[in-house]
Amino acid sequence: MVKIIERKIRDVEPLENAILVEGLPGIGHVGRIAAEHIVREFKGEKFLELYCYDFPPQVLVNEDGTVEFMNNEFYIIREPIPMIVVLGNTQALSPIGQYYLAEKLVEIGIKYGAKMTYTLGGFGVGKITDVPKVYAAATSKELAEKLKEYGVEFRKDGGGIVGAAGLMLTFSKLNGIEGVCLMGETPGYLVDPKSARAVLEKFSKIVGFEIDMKELEERAKEMEKFLEKIRKFEEEVMMQQQPKPPSDEDLRYIG
Amino acid sequence: MVKIIERKIRDVEPLENAILVEGLPGIGHVGRIAAEHIVREFKGEKFLELYCYDFPPQVLVNEDGTVEFMNNEFYIIREPIPMIVVLGNTQALSPIGQYYLAEKLVEIGIKYGAKMTYTLGGFGVGKITDVPKVYAAATSKELAEKLKEYGVEFRKDGGGIVGAAGLMLTFSKLNGIEGVCLMGETPGYLVDPKSARAVLEKFSKIVGFEIDMKELEERAKEMEKFLEKIRKFEEEVMMQQQPKPPSDEDLRYIG
Amino acid sequence: MVKIIERKIRDVEPLENAILVEGLPGIGHVGRIAAEHIVREFKGEKFLELYCYDFPPQVLVNEDGTVEFMNNEFYIIREPIPMIVVLGNTQALSPIGQYYLAEKLVEIGIKYGAKMTYTLGGFGVGKITDVPKVYAAATSKELAEKLKEYGVEFRKDGGGIVGAAGLMLTFSKLNGIEGVCLMGETPGYLVDPKSARAVLEKFSKIVGFEIDMKELEERAKEMEKFLEKIRKFEEEVMMQQQPKPPSDEDLRYIG
Amino acid sequence: MVKIIERKIRDVEPLENAILVEGLPGIGHVGRIAAEHIVREFKGEKFLELYCYDFPPQVLVNEDGTVEFMNNEFYIIREPIPMIVVLGNTQALSPIGQYYLAEKLVEIGIKYGAKMTYTLGGFGVGKITDVPKVYAAATSKELAEKLKEYGVEFRKDGGGIVGAAGLMLTFSKLNGIEGVCLMGETPGYLVDPKSARAVLEKFSKIVGFEIDMKELEERAKEMEKFLEKIRKFEEEVMMQQQPKPPSDEDLRYIG
Repeated sequence: MVKIIERKIRDVEPLENAILVEGLPGIGHVGRIAAEHIVREFKGEKFLELYCYDFPPQVLVNEDGTVEFMNNEFYIIREPIPMIVVLGNTQALSPIGQYYLAEKLVEIGIKYGAKMTYTLGGFGVGKITDVPKVYAAATSKELAEKLKEYGVEFRKDGGGIVGAAGLMLTFSKLNGIEGVCLMGETPGYLVDPKSARAVLEKFSKIVGFEIDMKELEERAKEMEKFLEKIRKFEEEVMMQQQPKPPSDEDLRYIG
Repeated sequence: MVKIIERKIRDVEPLENAILVEGLPGIGHVGRIAAEHIVREFKGEKFLELYCYDFPPQVLVNEDGTVEFMNNEFYIIREPIPMIVVLGNTQALSPIGQYYLAEKLVEIGIKYGAKMTYTLGGFGVGKITDVPKVYAAATSKELAEKLKEYGVEFRKDGGGIVGAAGLMLTFSKLNGIEGVCLMGETPGYLVDPKSARAVLEKFSKIVGFEIDMKELEERAKEMEKFLEKIRKFEEEVMMQQQPKPPSDEDLRYIG
Repeated sequence: MVKIIERKIRDVEPLENAILVEGLPGIGHVGRIAAEHIVREFKGEKFLELYCYDFPPQVLVNEDGTVEFMNNEFYIIREPIPMIVVLGNTQALSPIGQYYLAEKLVEIGIKYGAKMTYTLGGFGVGKITDVPKVYAAATSKELAEKLKEYGVEFRKDGGGIVGAAGLMLTFSKLNGIEGVCLMGETPGYLVDPKSARAVLEKFSKIVGFEIDMKELEERAKEMEKFLEKIRKFEEEVMMQQQPKPPSDEDLRYIG
Repeated sequence: MVKIIERKIRDVEPLENAILVEGLPGIGHVGRIAAEHIVREFKGEKFLELYCYDFPPQVLVNEDGTVEFMNNEFYIIREPIPMIVVLGNTQALSPIGQYYLAEKLVEIGIKYGAKMTYTLGGFGVGKITDVPKVYAAATSKELAEKLKEYGVEFRKDGGGIVGAAGLMLTFSKLNGIEGVCLMGETPGYLVDPKSARAVLEKFSKIVGFEIDMKELEERAKEMEKFLEKIRKFEEEVMMQQQPKPPSDEDLRYIG
């Protein structure tokens, strides 16, 4: 057993007919950025913290001299639709820890009224795409078919969904509720607000709410500028290299 | 303790005098292919799923947008002979997880009427053989002697049987029943229906049933064609290389 | 669960309004040296030993033919101020073990009267500094502000505090008491009494006691001499190398 | 918790004033060879098997088609002196597993009458010695002093005793009995009956029994012959190489 401590922050009434939304750190931090935006925009209230004995054995140090504990946090949102959102600065480290944590996350979601689980994440494709696609996977065929109407894609790579985003679907099924994972296409080596925006756009349509994207769009634009710089830099490097083909002399020194 | 969740799919009456058959993923997927063929041909009914907290912490994604959970599945077969068959898409990851899982697999087998365990697997030999041998190992000397009459071989390599195929023999013994592992010779780096066919042939004779091998033979033939292509390709490569022995010049550049 | 055995060495009355001080092995052994000095100078009495099943699976061998067990030890100090000090020759090995151990260390501290936790450690900076700075991190903003008055610094590296020194802050907070980590700047690749002295100086001012530093100063001086030797040696090596710039001939042989 | 199954082989009366002797696999298999010799010569009766869930997840395959389970075995010896001997084909894999196993081994020893623990092992020195020394380490100063009278040495390397041979001393102490580890000097890369013989010689004198060493001496002689061959081979290789110092030409091809 991997021990998980629940630290109640405030008493809250369970919701009715809520959805459980997961946005823990992962590829491109896509899910985390999207879920944090939801909590910020809809003024989610933190009501519970989880401390798992399989989190990294450390605290983080802030610049103001305080420490930040490794934990997962539950936020409650009542409007525009009832949501329980899980954020955090880490996932569990070992396979077994990940199972115990995902089980606990779903159990708490259900305890506070969730009737359906949405996990948000990134799908690493190794390159930058102009308009990131959003992929979906669901715990039932009917659900998958319904999702397709919202313009999401199905993955054909035969791979998996690793960590909480995947295992929370397993524990949703085992606890009698359905689950969906939405994955934004992302390079995988960059924090990616643009992909988070794409995921959030689909997600808000699927579950039925409107959300101000301004702040996310600004972060996405900043990212674009940064990427533009990289692209230019790479072009320049290539320009400088091209006119000068390697001489025999050069080749001699190649190890 | 490594937690294992049992998810009942349907109620079934325990069998009388059944055998427990294991075909989880392993070397060349020999055991898995053989056991899946048995379940398909004899129309085994799935009645139980196991979710072990030491399975890979993920779900797999299907092309139709659904997810596939990591689990082990129990099938019941009444005819031609009573069998409890374990299939699945994974084994446990850690040594401890493998012990807990093998213990559970045997306990469930016995609960549903198994009086003897057969684990099916591959024995990796690193090369392709025309007629794959079938090796056997048993939990008692008498059993081993009896098996020899069916033309199986005994391994002389002093090695082990790793994973569920080995540990289910340990837990069979600890629970008072005997066990046998049948291992088909296989290269180890290829999914090997031919070896699975060889194992199934011996197995069906030993436990006494007849089974249609057509589908397995077709898969074996496809594999043969594929191997033939590889062989030809390798020959061609060797032909092209042979006439040109390495010159001093070449040797100079070898790092 | 990771089992931890408590071995009582003597019965002691719990203290009132004590502080819990941790000095387990870590970077530069800064915390360990500082805490050991406190126990020695104030004649701390050992009253409890902990044996954690996630300590290194071994005993150490002393030159007199006795063995030294891997454990953590609790010392009680009544004067000049009430303190519970944790020393030891190891920390737990795995993340999970570190959580269970830190939890136990804090629980015992509280049981014996601790109302506040101080963990002492090193902050590895990769180079030798003449006057090592002391960094602090605290479980609350107010505490951090108060610490600043004592001339400690706040880290700006965005990193963490790993092991007992970090996790004991987590479990202090979870058990309703505050905690502070003091970290002495240290190269990271040397046992560092000088940094321990710097930490102890700040610590004694913060919690309000005076302590004789003579022995620690001597160890620091010995370290200085050793470092001086290294510096001279490096200078000589550089002097010998400088007058001889690499020739083309030399370059040819560089791999 | 790491589960350990006890499988009783026969009922035995607990001994009075017995010693617990450990000879599990380790460096040079010194302890195992020595303890197996004791069991063989004194016709020890196996009465208990342990199956630990942290043993290698496998069974071994014998040439007669039977499997050998991974386990630890307890033997009881009444004459010449009462002994409980632990043999086996493996130790636990993980640190935590090693703690749980060592705890169980000592508890069973005490349950069957042990008042003192002797663990037998090798001390790897990286080279072959003509007369292997025997090192000792004990759980008390008095014990160590007494051992010295038997001509054992104390290690000065500041290292540890890893695994059951070390941890069984820890759990002996925690359970109120004393313990000694005897370590035979051994190269570390060879199974070493000669070192086992040296350990057994000291051990038999210390605890007070006489034992026929013939079989062990024969194995040691065979080992000597084997080593002699290696020495000759190495000499020949060196002879052939010596007259031919590397030429500039040779040096050019060294990568």
